[in-house]
Amino acid sequence: MGLLEKIQSPADVRRLTPTQTVELAEEIRGFLVRTVSRTGGHLGPNLGVVELTIGMHRVFSSPKDTFVFDTGHQSYVHKLLTGRQAFGDLRQRGGLSGYPSRAESEHDVVENSHASTALSWADGIAKANVVRGLNDRHVVALIGDGALTGGMAWEALNNIAAGHDRRLIMIVNDNGRSYAPTIGGMAHHLDTLRTTRGYESFLEWGKRTLRRSGPPGRLAYDALHGLKKGIKDVVSPQGMFEDLGIKYVGPVDGHDVDDVERALARAKAFGAPVLVHVITEKGRGYSPAEQDVADRFHAVGQIHPETGLPVAPSRFGWTKVFADEIVAIGHDRPDVVAITAAMLAPVGLAPFEKAFPARTFDVGIAEQHAATSAAGMAFAGLHPVVALYATFLNRAFDQVLMDVALHKAGVTFVLDRAGITGSDGASHNGMWDIAMLRIVPGLHLAAPRDEATLRAALRTAVDIDDAPSVVRYPKGALGDPMPALDTLDGVDVLARETGTGTGGAGARRRVLVVGIGAMAGTALEVSTALAAHGVDTTVASPTWVLPMPSALVKLAGEHDLVVAIEDGIAEGGAGALLGEHAALARVTTPVRTVGLPTEFLDHASREQIVVGHRLTAADVVRDVLDDLSRG
Amino acid sequence: MGLLEKIQSPADVRRLTPTQTVELAEEIRGFLVRTVSRTGGHLGPNLGVVELTIGMHRVFSSPKDTFVFDTGHQSYVHKLLTGRQAFGDLRQRGGLSGYPSRAESEHDVVENSHASTALSWADGIAKANVVRGLNDRHVVALIGDGALTGGMAWEALNNIAAGHDRRLIMIVNDNGRSYAPTIGGMAHHLDTLRTTRGYESFLEWGKRTLRRSGPPGRLAYDALHGLKKGIKDVVSPQGMFEDLGIKYVGPVDGHDVDDVERALARAKAFGAPVLVHVITEKGRGYSPAEQDVADRFHAVGQIHPETGLPVAPSRFGWTKVFADEIVAIGHDRPDVVAITAAMLAPVGLAPFEKAFPARTFDVGIAEQHAATSAAGMAFAGLHPVVALYATFLNRAFDQVLMDVALHKAGVTFVLDRAGITGSDGASHNGMWDIAMLRIVPGLHLAAPRDEATLRAALRTAVDIDDAPSVVRYPKGALGDPMPALDTLDGVDVLARETGTGTGGAGARRRVLVVGIGAMAGTALEVSTALAAHGVDTTVASPTWVLPMPSALVKLAGEHDLVVAIEDGIAEGGAGALLGEHAALARVTTPVRTVGLPTEFLDHASREQIVVGHRLTAADVVRDVLDDLSRG
Repeated sequence: MGLLEKIQSPADVRRLTPTQTVELAEEIRGFLVRTVSRTGGHLGPNLGVVELTIGMHRVFSSPKDTFVFDTGHQSYVHKLLTGRQAFGDLRQRGGLSGYPSRAESEHDVVENSHASTALSWADGIAKANVVRGLNDRHVVALIGDGALTGGMAWEALNNIAAGHDRRLIMIVNDNGRSYAPTIGGMAHHLDTLRTTRGYESFLEWGKRTLRRSGPPGRLAYDALHGLKKGIKDVVSPQGMFEDLGIKYVGPVDGHDVDDVERALARAKAFGAPVLVHVITEKGRGYSPAEQDVADRFHAVGQIHPETGLPVAPSRFGWTKVFADEIVAIGHDRPDVVAITAAMLAPVGLAPFEKAFPARTFDVGIAEQHAATSAAGMAFAGLHPVVALYATFLNRAFDQVLMDVALHKAGVTFVLDRAGITGSDGASHNGMWDIAMLRIVPGLHLAAPRDEATLRAALRTAVDIDDAPSVVRYPKGALGDPMPALDTLDGVDVLARETGTGTGGAGARRRVLVVGIGAMAGTALEVSTALAAHGVDTTVASPTWVLPMPSALVKLAGEHDLVVAIEDGIAEGGAGALLGEHAALARVTTPVRTVGLPTEFLDHASREQIVVGHRLTAADVVRDVLDDLSRG
Repeated sequence: MGLLEKIQSPADVRRLTPTQTVELAEEIRGFLVRTVSRTGGHLGPNLGVVELTIGMHRVFSSPKDTFVFDTGHQSYVHKLLTGRQAFGDLRQRGGLSGYPSRAESEHDVVENSHASTALSWADGIAKANVVRGLNDRHVVALIGDGALTGGMAWEALNNIAAGHDRRLIMIVNDNGRSYAPTIGGMAHHLDTLRTTRGYESFLEWGKRTLRRSGPPGRLAYDALHGLKKGIKDVVSPQGMFEDLGIKYVGPVDGHDVDDVERALARAKAFGAPVLVHVITEKGRGYSPAEQDVADRFHAVGQIHPETGLPVAPSRFGWTKVFADEIVAIGHDRPDVVAITAAMLAPVGLAPFEKAFPARTFDVGIAEQHAATSAAGMAFAGLHPVVALYATFLNRAFDQVLMDVALHKAGVTFVLDRAGITGSDGASHNGMWDIAMLRIVPGLHLAAPRDEATLRAALRTAVDIDDAPSVVRYPKGALGDPMPALDTLDGVDVLARETGTGTGGAGARRRVLVVGIGAMAGTALEVSTALAAHGVDTTVASPTWVLPMPSALVKLAGEHDLVVAIEDGIAEGGAGALLGEHAALARVTTPVRTVGLPTEFLDHASREQIVVGHRLTAADVVRDVLDDLSRG
């Protein structure tokens, strides 16, 4: 029986001898490689924080001390040390979540997997501890170097610097090989911190030198202080954080439990905010060649710092079509440039970057800056294409509204993973985009249904030069082509079917089935099934949903019932908008909206979510027939 | 005839002799004091940047070089130097805008007055210039020290640091007396930069010293470099920006045109991103006592850095009631704490801060951090009340969704200036709040109609401990009390009137008039007028609009028509939500929504906007009677 099996709680971790901690680390590595290679999950990042997490649990006492994990996919070791070792069902419905989960444990706090939030959570918790007089509690935030490029992290640092009475420890997990190099000035600074050596011994020399030759009095004191700081900048520059007033400890070898414990103990004793800079190696101790694992576990090791998702670009599906078409557009249009928020490959921009390196900009995990700098580019004569996962555009709502739309800037946003994403967890579903973007004045939004409409929508979007344009599509594989029978003022009609059934409730009733984006497939299934119940149907697919096409409103008026199917939230979504426009046009046809509830979705597969929320064709048909029988 | 009158364009400014620039500055001061004291506007901030703006126009060539003003209320001098001296109608409809306006001039670029955006705009424009090969163009961003606390500014700095090929000059206008002390680490750092002196001469001593006694070889080089940097840190520390890789120039006396020109010329010649740190004095050269101006011009001088609005707390109206009630709540509830984003007095939190200083937190211009740190506080046992202007919550949509709502955190947001704000400009209207917040799962939102319902809503909000709660109210004065006749499951009924008219189109028809928040007043007027046309009416006022009360849906079903009046955007707003819920409940009563269009509003008074967008009671009555005559 190994050490790991005996660890029931953090108290057991604290009882280990130093030698045992090294053994435990090795056991955990083996455990993670064995189990995660079966279940899938974030192997590499967790292998990188084994010793660090052990050190955290030995120096601090969770849950009295609060641990906050930024984009919590690095919490597997934490789970193992807090009584959760049943990794067999990891990330499956009913099994352990791949992220911290309050429902699982009192040791888990933050479930949001959008990056750069941890320091703000920690600041709030630390402030509350002071207000409540709980001065023996510490807050420990673990954040990656990439997440420090996000504006929220800066807002938090600025606040934390002002809080000398708070017991807050920020651990910057600097693994220097997140999937893409962390960009910008902060990375440059961390790099300097990381690569310089020998501070302590050099400092002694500096002090001696200055004592011999310094100017007198106050000036000498200042000089000594300054020289000390300056020498630190040579050998172990820690300028920026200390300039802000935050104590800096590091760099620390994150794979030496002793070193980690010493640094954390020093930080704990300081009694004010401290930043501990820990150097780790992602995937430490894991040699895929030795383990003979399948190719996908290489991919698993390549994790995006914000999403915690594999970063390999899709070799198929929506992303691939975008990747292809945007390169073609780039050749035709020298003014088209691309912007990514630290997700070049996942959103499909790697080929564009290869073709047009000088026209590709990675702004870091900084969606706000992505949107507003795009507005600046549009002002200066370019047409930027900002490619994001749909859920992350939520971070830039104000900038889309006030910088892009208010200034009538021709900026295209391409939203991958719109709609249901499934097992990535609640905060990755891209289900808010249409409901949020429909309130932005002048914005154009396309929800293409297949490859051809995606390519066409992209071409149209980059031609819109006086307003924001959005093209959104789901995660995963593309379905078959769904050609239009004909097109009514921009609204494609995919099918018209005459009821052939036995003449039940639906006989001689006309139903307009609207499929938003890829839900056009469901709309076609619904139509066929309704026709079999004697209902006359029309299937409409409005690629451009915003502004709401008047042709769709008109079409609605020619039917007895409209059913609009989408994969975002139904309330306030595209179907609801159609209903509002119909009312304004005095079209009295009832509009039934079908979509997701305004709720956070539990982690489950896409199929489980579709079935669970009654989004299958069979569900829709049943409800429509019920409606018709009442009408 | 003075110099100012002869300035038709920036070219004229460049032709002045150094002596004339000093004269021009004095003339502009006199002009601003004379004209702005008549029209109202941002006197103090503009007096602070007279010499700075002159220097900008002498060293750079707008519009070839692009000027970007953060929260553009500091652009009056810029307007005067770019051919716009007709200040008689400043800030009135048809007159000059109080902000940069593209419609006015090719010299104006950014109209958004939310803070911290300028560096992102500048980064985008500079990138575009490089892509287009326009290497002789510079981008100059003017940003206040307070705005550097916003996360967007950090995201931009991080990007700008990586752009060594870009000609971008950031001018930090550090006036050290924005309405409240700028908070946090950044302010601490700027303060150090501001107050230290004598760098150049001291540096020479340092070099000599080290040459005499330094260690040999590479180590000596590093030491020299480090010592130089260290000494700078003593006498003129410029650590942080240079740590990020951004050239720092300063501090510069912003009231000496020569000094300003020299610093800007040096920055211009550098050919890579430079930060110029300029010290200015707000209100420079303006002595209200000498000028015998009214008290309100003191207030005009007290401008909030983010909004550019007067910061004096309202002595009446909604803000005052909130200010009063939150103190009372603070006495009853020791767990209630308050958070402001650099707007303590404007949102009415000054009395709370006075009563409970340790329970009041100013986070800087950092709405994202405000929301997420509040979630942290809620986790740790407090109930935070985050008080903002409604428009600024747009900055924190993702945090409200993913940190507060997903974690079921009991956080109360109090939104002042919701709805139409009028002359503050397009980006200050708080018209998106309900449409945006209704898509947040589990969120509770109250729109009180008068003092009593505001006090009650606040009490209810702080009792909600498992979800975000929002209380929103408009700018300005409170109307008379509007007591309820009775209450149906939480929905107040304010009036029931029987048609007494001549029996036209509306006779014996029943109309439910729903007034959201303060629009309850309009609803009562509409009801009375409709009754005079023979219509039976009910006036409902649902203080808690989200979640949509089922009692309101039921009430709708008992009428022939519903008209819902709100001061936010109508599409996707509260009325639209009522319509959707009615449809779901198979209530067939048509719901007419009355509110603002999904458009940016031009600057105009609140009354002009209400009339212009047909939100008066007379407009609503006309449309309802029209509806009834068709039905």
